[in-house]
Amino acid sequence: MSGWIAVAGLGPGADDLVTPEVRAALAAATDIVGYIPYVARVATRPGLVLHPSDNRVELDRARHALEMAAAGRRVVVVSSGDPGVFAMASALFEALEGREDAPEIRILPGITAMLAAAARLGAPLGHDFCAINLSDNLKPWALIEKRLRLAAEADFAMAFYNPRSKSRPEGFSRVLEILREACGPDRLISFARAVSTPDEDLRTVALRAATPEMADMRTVVILGNSATRRVGPWVYTPRSVP
Amino acid sequence: MSGWIAVAGLGPGADDLVTPEVRAALAAATDIVGYIPYVARVATRPGLVLHPSDNRVELDRARHALEMAAAGRRVVVVSSGDPGVFAMASALFEALEGREDAPEIRILPGITAMLAAAARLGAPLGHDFCAINLSDNLKPWALIEKRLRLAAEADFAMAFYNPRSKSRPEGFSRVLEILREACGPDRLISFARAVSTPDEDLRTVALRAATPEMADMRTVVILGNSATRRVGPWVYTPRSVP
Repeated sequence: MSGWIAVAGLGPGADDLVTPEVRAALAAATDIVGYIPYVARVATRPGLVLHPSDNRVELDRARHALEMAAAGRRVVVVSSGDPGVFAMASALFEALEGREDAPEIRILPGITAMLAAAARLGAPLGHDFCAINLSDNLKPWALIEKRLRLAAEADFAMAFYNPRSKSRPEGFSRVLEILREACGPDRLISFARAVSTPDEDLRTVALRAATPEMADMRTVVILGNSATRRVGPWVYTPRSVP
Repeated sequence: MSGWIAVAGLGPGADDLVTPEVRAALAAATDIVGYIPYVARVATRPGLVLHPSDNRVELDRARHALEMAAAGRRVVVVSSGDPGVFAMASALFEALEGREDAPEIRILPGITAMLAAAARLGAPLGHDFCAINLSDNLKPWALIEKRLRLAAEADFAMAFYNPRSKSRPEGFSRVLEILREACGPDRLISFARAVSTPDEDLRTVALRAATPEMADMRTVVILGNSATRRVGPWVYTPRSVP
């Protein structure tokens, strides 16, 4: 039997947000590869080998998956959310560069954090929007600042992944300053932590009241556009611009 | 028994991309509301009332759902893809404005078209990106042009919803001109039609070779950023910027 790789999105956390397509891949796998907390979400069973690894070793992990598939294993590389959004799919294709042959590869989409968060909040991404990874591990900080200013000028709603981590305590504070300057103090900003898990926490404030401590590694942050508003407990961005 | 509304994303088309959460809502519903082709995707059963309606009557549809829920019905408003991305969730909150009371409302996320398409193509949205609705039904055309130029300057990958329709035959041709001007003729652009259905069709070309006819109402279009490249049959955007 020939090996394959599926790069699968486990969604934000809840079991009922995992697609049947991903469930079927997990059921057919011999090996699960991924970041420790994501591999921990996969149910163990006899014959299934788990290969949890630490953060920031995405390329090593992708190469390991390719080697196992070449040896005939059926490998699922797990990501949280969707594998194509700041996750393992790109890393796998980077690892493919320069290789002579490739196994069968499928990318299996999942519910990405910003859309799970948006659903819980209302519909803050209901008009044109952008998604920006605020980590400067893999790109210069100046590029992040440039993108924030251009996205504000375009009046995009914005979803921010990886807003804050222990290794970058200052970055998100600077992001909030730039956004206040570019979007004004009244703009709505939502902090959605651990959506669909028992630790879920949602909070929406005006930019003037936003502080860096409102975000951590499990938070996705959503900034409204200039028309984003509240109705009852909800936050939404109208579909139309007059 | 009190009524409720769930605004549910049916995903791009395939049954195995519908989340269990959405399946459960459909199973508990008394009424299904939505655009004709999306309601047609829901399995009928005794006691389930289908309320298909035409395109462009989103607010009427939302009001109808609110009235039925107030009368104790359990209403699922169906969208294709994700309900929060250019779909029914925003329309429902617009319809809520000014009302004295609201029923229980849940927004149930789904696999949105751009992420289903990205997964089939490889990982073209693997770095910062934006999502733009190219229809000018609900916003001025000048705003679309402005956003395209700013998004190009930010070097976002871009996903385009509603690229082309019978009522707007010229718009997408103009979009391609602007993108060629702003991003150069070598930039990769992918046309993903009817992803995950029997009609699925994928095509990636350089911008110089892109023509308006490559898109129709069932197509989502994904433009790479300046680093997007091919590896084997795949298209991906590297995670890092040097």
